[in-house]
Amino acid sequence: MEESIAVKRKRGRPPKVDNSRIETRERLIREGTAILTTKGLASTGLDEILKKTEIPKGSFYHYFSSKDDFGLAVIENYGRYFAKKLDHWLLNENRAPLDRIRDFIEDAKSGMARHQFKRGCLIGNLGQELGSLDEKFRMPLEETFLDWQNRIAQCLEDAKATGDLKPDADCKDIAAFFWIGWEGAILRAKLVKSNQPIDLFSSVFFKGL
Amino acid sequence: MEESIAVKRKRGRPPKVDNSRIETRERLIREGTAILTTKGLASTGLDEILKKTEIPKGSFYHYFSSKDDFGLAVIENYGRYFAKKLDHWLLNENRAPLDRIRDFIEDAKSGMARHQFKRGCLIGNLGQELGSLDEKFRMPLEETFLDWQNRIAQCLEDAKATGDLKPDADCKDIAAFFWIGWEGAILRAKLVKSNQPIDLFSSVFFKGL
Repeated sequence: MEESIAVKRKRGRPPKVDNSRIETRERLIREGTAILTTKGLASTGLDEILKKTEIPKGSFYHYFSSKDDFGLAVIENYGRYFAKKLDHWLLNENRAPLDRIRDFIEDAKSGMARHQFKRGCLIGNLGQELGSLDEKFRMPLEETFLDWQNRIAQCLEDAKATGDLKPDADCKDIAAFFWIGWEGAILRAKLVKSNQPIDLFSSVFFKGL
Repeated sequence: MEESIAVKRKRGRPPKVDNSRIETRERLIREGTAILTTKGLASTGLDEILKKTEIPKGSFYHYFSSKDDFGLAVIENYGRYFAKKLDHWLLNENRAPLDRIRDFIEDAKSGMARHQFKRGCLIGNLGQELGSLDEKFRMPLEETFLDWQNRIAQCLEDAKATGDLKPDADCKDIAAFFWIGWEGAILRAKLVKSNQPIDLFSSVFFKGL
């Protein structure tokens, strides 16, 4: 069936967007990411988020049904942002696969230093807080880890293909091991306010490959 | 100068102890350890601790000047308890040094399962929470890690002596790496409610030695 000119025109047009609404939601998520990466969710009051963003409570509830709903949106946004960051380093064909992982680590280290070792990994923070959080947080947090894990596993497969990794290496297990250790390293880096734990983790990790 | 008989008698006597006072303080610390190992400190209200222990607020302030003061006492107690647990396994001369570390891991795994993966490591929990905690927590947390680290490093030295570890292995670095990864593994085990992350960490860790 042929589409009417009106429908064709409608499809061709970009969807109607209310910029101010997107802006408010994005501002809430952006500020929420900064707070949750520093303090986690459990001890963060909604008032603190509203004060930082200068957004009234009524407006907040226009976008999110609860603090938890907001937390889940922040997790989703952070997972996506971090996956993009990982891809930027791990899909860089100008570098050998294992060096791509090293590049990602160096970039993360500058990020840690830039924020004075106050911000860690939002997924690690909220994972550690599970005892104070609703059960509905469990799945999205674990899925985010699995997504990052797959990206590292793929990069390790590439290293196998170039002969930089033993042919019998279990890339899935090593990738899982990487993120387990990584979260521990970030925690410790925040504690000692230095990238030394990340360097130590990275050096022993690559030696063990 | 000769001591008087009265002084000698006084020194010989066991110090006067008010058992009910020790009991109250111990009960607070014991219950505090359970809560802080599950939820951390930042999102735990003093009221919650008082309710669980059925100890009135006035009595709490008799032993601790603040919630933070209480938190520091819980950290100290936990550090000591855990060091004793480590020694139990790591100084067991009936087992080869690396097997002693494996024994500790197995014991920790049963503990995780026994508490339905709700309790993690108090030091890791509070370390993760630093963004919400007072600066005075930083040092005791890091010192606790360093104490545990030294015990694992010593066990690795023993493994070197028995030839179970390469003679050029850096026991201090490997011990630091162990605790970094360990905290990540505990975090992840709580997240997936299973010991699988601990098993994976352990298996890749020993393979890399």
